[in-house]
Amino acid sequence: MRVHIQNDPAEPVFTVTPELWAEASARAGEKNHQVSFGLTPEEFREALAEAEVVIAAPSTLAKLLPAPAPRLQLIFCTAAGVDALAPFTNLPPGAVLVNNRGVHGAKAGEYALMALLMLANRMPALATAQRNHRWEKHHGSLLAGRRLTVVGLGDMGAHAAELAARFGMEVTGIRARPVPHFACVHVLGPEALDTCLPRTEFLLLACPLTAATRGLLNRERIFLLPRGAGVVNIGRGQLIDEAALREALLVGHLSGAVLDVFTEEPLPPQHPFWETPNLILTPHVSADDPARYIPVSLDIFFANLQAWREGRPLPNQVDVVRGY
Amino acid sequence: MRVHIQNDPAEPVFTVTPELWAEASARAGEKNHQVSFGLTPEEFREALAEAEVVIAAPSTLAKLLPAPAPRLQLIFCTAAGVDALAPFTNLPPGAVLVNNRGVHGAKAGEYALMALLMLANRMPALATAQRNHRWEKHHGSLLAGRRLTVVGLGDMGAHAAELAARFGMEVTGIRARPVPHFACVHVLGPEALDTCLPRTEFLLLACPLTAATRGLLNRERIFLLPRGAGVVNIGRGQLIDEAALREALLVGHLSGAVLDVFTEEPLPPQHPFWETPNLILTPHVSADDPARYIPVSLDIFFANLQAWREGRPLPNQVDVVRGY
Repeated sequence: MRVHIQNDPAEPVFTVTPELWAEASARAGEKNHQVSFGLTPEEFREALAEAEVVIAAPSTLAKLLPAPAPRLQLIFCTAAGVDALAPFTNLPPGAVLVNNRGVHGAKAGEYALMALLMLANRMPALATAQRNHRWEKHHGSLLAGRRLTVVGLGDMGAHAAELAARFGMEVTGIRARPVPHFACVHVLGPEALDTCLPRTEFLLLACPLTAATRGLLNRERIFLLPRGAGVVNIGRGQLIDEAALREALLVGHLSGAVLDVFTEEPLPPQHPFWETPNLILTPHVSADDPARYIPVSLDIFFANLQAWREGRPLPNQVDVVRGY
Repeated sequence: MRVHIQNDPAEPVFTVTPELWAEASARAGEKNHQVSFGLTPEEFREALAEAEVVIAAPSTLAKLLPAPAPRLQLIFCTAAGVDALAPFTNLPPGAVLVNNRGVHGAKAGEYALMALLMLANRMPALATAQRNHRWEKHHGSLLAGRRLTVVGLGDMGAHAAELAARFGMEVTGIRARPVPHFACVHVLGPEALDTCLPRTEFLLLACPLTAATRGLLNRERIFLLPRGAGVVNIGRGQLIDEAALREALLVGHLSGAVLDVFTEEPLPPQHPFWETPNLILTPHVSADDPARYIPVSLDIFFANLQAWREGRPLPNQVDVVRGY
């Protein structure tokens, strides 16, 4: 097929190189594709006149679309969260949208367990003390046996729940379609969140950003958490009322937070989060392992391409109504 | 027996209260002890004229001994590391020294796994970036499958090795008496350290401070580690050449370090470690869980007291020649 790969010059670590493409093609036994690589808007527009498949990050596509794409049939996003493309009205009509769900779970799970251990060990308070050159003994506690609520049991949330359960935590899952999960004591629908929060010691947000989840952790819900609870966000910044979260940290209602995602990214140098006490922030890196990211993404791409060719349901097709 | 408990007024969280003593006595079925509680040097000296057993932290005893203790038979330290009492020449002659080894393992193991996950996730670099209000994408990697060397397989090191192995790490143990351990692929003697370091991706120090371990991680050994390695210290600060460690972080030889113990504690406000890039420090809290510390210590005390009364070997007796 005629495949166009549009890389983002600002993301050299996540570039689909000809070498990675060749290796993944060989692993999949796929040989007869005509592939082009682009970095500029001109290269994108030119390739789209012919391309049947395009591979790019959602943020890249959001900048370049709409564009005429008369032969396009498949769009493969090198990301799982496609909220940058919502409400999906700029996508070429008739093209199927596929994401790389499955790439992030292993790394995101380890990051989540790290963040939970950091909360139990009071690292947010200790990091604040280090910033102030102060030797303050904030004593932690064991994580094993504690109660965790995971919102979103997709690839990332499920991996996190599994590691937490293996670690001896009592895990409750919240998801849109509440079916049992082996790592969770309970899996409940979103309507159960408010009754679940008061007994949540640790809250992990790992859900996509959609119309239904925007602002999910609002001020009221933050203060439904018990005093001393900890919050981790590896989903999207817009899931949280960030001003209310900051307030809950300042007044000591929450003992700490570990955030990897923010409403505004990169977080501006003057943003109050940099210096908010008991807040540890990381720059949207929780789920990305450069050593595996593009190779695993391409393996997922070829698995979907084969399903598409054979007329089977695509394992990674995005439901543009739900938004994930 | 006549038991004296000397608490440290500076450590209210780790105070042996009459309530905790009564609860532990009841758990152990021990009823007929005459117990006194002291906070001042005068109370200590007065009680020691009669006491058969004394319970205190090593740092407390180091300040108060030598002192006449004509009837003293058992000294129970509410700590595992008794290096503050070395070379043990101030201990009343004839009294047996016992520590609380076994209290720290569960908490120290969780801290160690947290620290290893933090190193794999580049948290030291990310925390440095947060201190500077800089959005710098330092990408991490998976911890599972990586190589860890643990120096010291006592209570803390063994718990850490076990969690790391459960997490899929390949663990090598180094200890004075190298006997096999189920969590370790190899257990080697101290003489193997130099050949082990070049293939160590993560190094965890969890050994006691003794004449044999002082300065163990010297400059030469730090630079035997491969470029990009990470170091965790939950033993004692004096195990490490701290100036050389700082240099290795500054030149990027080590990718990060997580240190809980320091040669000088509390670390002075002007110490260069507070601002050393890629260094995360915590104030000697890694192994202490206030909720369990004194109750479990007292359970260990009574187990040793019963062994002593029955003429059995004491499970926690300190070998003052080895120093632990």
